[in-house]
Amino acid sequence: MLDLNADLAEGFGPWPLTDDDALLDIVTSANVACGFHAGDAVTMRRVCARATERGVRIGAQVSYRDLAGFGRRFLDVDPETLTAEILYQVGALRAFGTVQYVKPHGALYNAVVHHEAQARAVVDAARAAGDLPVMALPGGRLLEFAADAGLTTIAEAFADRGYTAAGTLVPRSEPGALLPDTDAVVERAVRLARDGVIVAVDGSEIRVRADSLCLHGDTPEAVGNARAVREALESEPADPSS
Amino acid sequence: MLDLNADLAEGFGPWPLTDDDALLDIVTSANVACGFHAGDAVTMRRVCARATERGVRIGAQVSYRDLAGFGRRFLDVDPETLTAEILYQVGALRAFGTVQYVKPHGALYNAVVHHEAQARAVVDAARAAGDLPVMALPGGRLLEFAADAGLTTIAEAFADRGYTAAGTLVPRSEPGALLPDTDAVVERAVRLARDGVIVAVDGSEIRVRADSLCLHGDTPEAVGNARAVREALESEPADPSS
Amino acid sequence: MLDLNADLAEGFGPWPLTDDDALLDIVTSANVACGFHAGDAVTMRRVCARATERGVRIGAQVSYRDLAGFGRRFLDVDPETLTAEILYQVGALRAFGTVQYVKPHGALYNAVVHHEAQARAVVDAARAAGDLPVMALPGGRLLEFAADAGLTTIAEAFADRGYTAAGTLVPRSEPGALLPDTDAVVERAVRLARDGVIVAVDGSEIRVRADSLCLHGDTPEAVGNARAVREALESEPADPSS
Amino acid sequence: MLDLNADLAEGFGPWPLTDDDALLDIVTSANVACGFHAGDAVTMRRVCARATERGVRIGAQVSYRDLAGFGRRFLDVDPETLTAEILYQVGALRAFGTVQYVKPHGALYNAVVHHEAQARAVVDAARAAGDLPVMALPGGRLLEFAADAGLTTIAEAFADRGYTAAGTLVPRSEPGALLPDTDAVVERAVRLARDGVIVAVDGSEIRVRADSLCLHGDTPEAVGNARAVREALESEPADPSS
Repeated sequence: MLDLNADLAEGFGPWPLTDDDALLDIVTSANVACGFHAGDAVTMRRVCARATERGVRIGAQVSYRDLAGFGRRFLDVDPETLTAEILYQVGALRAFGTVQYVKPHGALYNAVVHHEAQARAVVDAARAAGDLPVMALPGGRLLEFAADAGLTTIAEAFADRGYTAAGTLVPRSEPGALLPDTDAVVERAVRLARDGVIVAVDGSEIRVRADSLCLHGDTPEAVGNARAVREALESEPADPSS
Repeated sequence: MLDLNADLAEGFGPWPLTDDDALLDIVTSANVACGFHAGDAVTMRRVCARATERGVRIGAQVSYRDLAGFGRRFLDVDPETLTAEILYQVGALRAFGTVQYVKPHGALYNAVVHHEAQARAVVDAARAAGDLPVMALPGGRLLEFAADAGLTTIAEAFADRGYTAAGTLVPRSEPGALLPDTDAVVERAVRLARDGVIVAVDGSEIRVRADSLCLHGDTPEAVGNARAVREALESEPADPSS
Repeated sequence: MLDLNADLAEGFGPWPLTDDDALLDIVTSANVACGFHAGDAVTMRRVCARATERGVRIGAQVSYRDLAGFGRRFLDVDPETLTAEILYQVGALRAFGTVQYVKPHGALYNAVVHHEAQARAVVDAARAAGDLPVMALPGGRLLEFAADAGLTTIAEAFADRGYTAAGTLVPRSEPGALLPDTDAVVERAVRLARDGVIVAVDGSEIRVRADSLCLHGDTPEAVGNARAVREALESEPADPSS
Repeated sequence: MLDLNADLAEGFGPWPLTDDDALLDIVTSANVACGFHAGDAVTMRRVCARATERGVRIGAQVSYRDLAGFGRRFLDVDPETLTAEILYQVGALRAFGTVQYVKPHGALYNAVVHHEAQARAVVDAARAAGDLPVMALPGGRLLEFAADAGLTTIAEAFADRGYTAAGTLVPRSEPGALLPDTDAVVERAVRLARDGVIVAVDGSEIRVRADSLCLHGDTPEAVGNARAVREALESEPADPSS
């Protein structure tokens, strides 16, 4: 089955956010927050224990140091600091389970598509952490540099976001940025898993590399979508070529 | 030679504190701050790299989550949270080097002498972190519970603090809390290393278990004391019994 | 009408908590979090603007510096620091509205019932902030010292907590700690407003000084209770003696 | 005498930084850190008390929320949040003394030279804080927008930085970025105070608007320079035109 990933452990202290227990019954890869944009130690430990029980892969969802902004604002941190801070986060998470990949969060995720120094800093951290695979959007600097460095790359697609005919995401400010309903989300997942194809907002079919499909889980509706995707993929006949 | 330990990496961001480079030439064990009372990722990484080069053992100097108070104020944190936060700190430090022991810092150091729930929480963390040895003051709950749990215990003595005839530290508010000069500090170290004996403030000799001697390094004078202790111990004839 | 207060602005960054808009339609006094246990600047500003529009009094809900623990853990901070930190919080809140009282939050609220040094530190801050009134539980050190210092004291009672015959709160670990349903909460509020009386868990009537009634609002049910209390108090005939 | 300003209260918790007491004997305006890049409440209170005693003006040195980076990294915070966070900082500082101006710190200082949305956000905060004057580099967006909004602007020059013939600062990576010695710093201050002129790195004289001269004080040498500047300006004959 196509790998399904979601962001987990994104509460902090008194404040819950993601429905971690529900998502751990759905996903096959958990992007666990590591304390820099969200994720306290108790939550990280609990989520990792449950992920391990269920055979869900654990990834380090690493971020700029920005709790107040949830890691959603670009921070012009120097590469040496960024590398050390990512290593710190990965190490902290490893206290709770076996970390199998690194995925940047929020503004860092977006920055490393084009910001070469920060992309290299993430790659340096992944290498220093024992050649961890890197999960990110295909087509950006991060996966390019990761591949150059000999790291395994995990390209992801989004289950509920609109794509342009050029294969980029429709900006959130434009119509079609989000798929309209659960049926559309499920169809997206099935087409991608079966044919490696995404239907863009203009109706054209684009071929997208997707080693994993990103599900959202921060609303009850999003959890419902995620569950529907999981059920649809499980009922698909196995890929005859695999 | 008697093991010499000191607190390192206790700066944070723009603020330096400990003279890490000087101390790494003196000590044989480095208690590295892990980000909860001090210690940013860049400093932790640099200190661990240098410690590893020089064969200095790395210990996790773990703390309450209290940067603003430098971990010096008692915090009534529940044991589950404390255990998870210590695991987080140890894990983060392991990103930078091989961690060989755990030593509580500041108010936590003092609390676990008598606070049973927090002492057990530290032991739980040391066990979950792969049965790490625990460094602390002899005679308190922490080392007692650690020994009960089958962990290696590292009892430490202080190079520059006055001791009462009962073997406890002279409170900082009383006369004799600090040894008066470098000569006294060196004599303390030599007597302890050679004879296992400390001379108390009243002149009596007390027998103290000391697997490691704690040096301070947060002032230029303290670094000078530390260096003098190191030189004196190195010029001692080797213990014939060992 | 009896003053009704509730804790507001207790989200932080991406994490909402209290239903601020609903509560601002119900309460007459808003205890606004000031950033030390919760409360980011945007939320504080929005809540104060809305409170001011509606004529709701603004109080500074001041806390230990402990975001990760939501200010719910005792912190052994020295009085000088506590006073300065409370002044800082009150000052920050004043940027957004007219602050009419100070109310300690969480573990600080509980500590100053008996911890004399911290109680005095809160009073020192309230005086230095321009003789602000202090809201707290009656019978503790804080209100005693506040009264001694010539400050206005605001004694509060709880709308949904069980009371012992001695006038103290039933501990949360015991039966009767929380009133069972909305009817009981409303009856509590009405008896208190009309007669100055609370019915204890053993059925006895106790006379309680209550200048304000504390409502909770961190669950949908709690908001419902709060609204029912407000409606019941508004439909009461005005107190003939006032 | 020409107004002399310096950054103060830039320690945090256990970590001192600026030599606040020495500088308060030298400057006429103190840019007090407000807790977002540095500055704990105890230090802020102490510095403000001493500044008030000596008749030193207090300004709010406001910053991005970035303690770990000392506010030196650009943060892409949205204007609404930036305005609220500046108001928060100014309000907190007002708890300790009368705030007479706002001066952005570090990366925010540099950003608002050209970043229009953030420059407007600072102006919005200064207006909402009661039309506070704004101190900044002349020629940037911030002072332009501040003037447009009817705020008093305080243009500053730097006592120890090299200027290009175009009136901009020589970048720190280039030769001439810092004046070579105390004599050069004193000469700079005297020429500026007497003639309104700065000698650029190429020897040309440029006319610079300077309502205040910024001194640094984070090294012993810098404090020495600052003291020499103060003495030189005091021994100048008073400007006959003023």
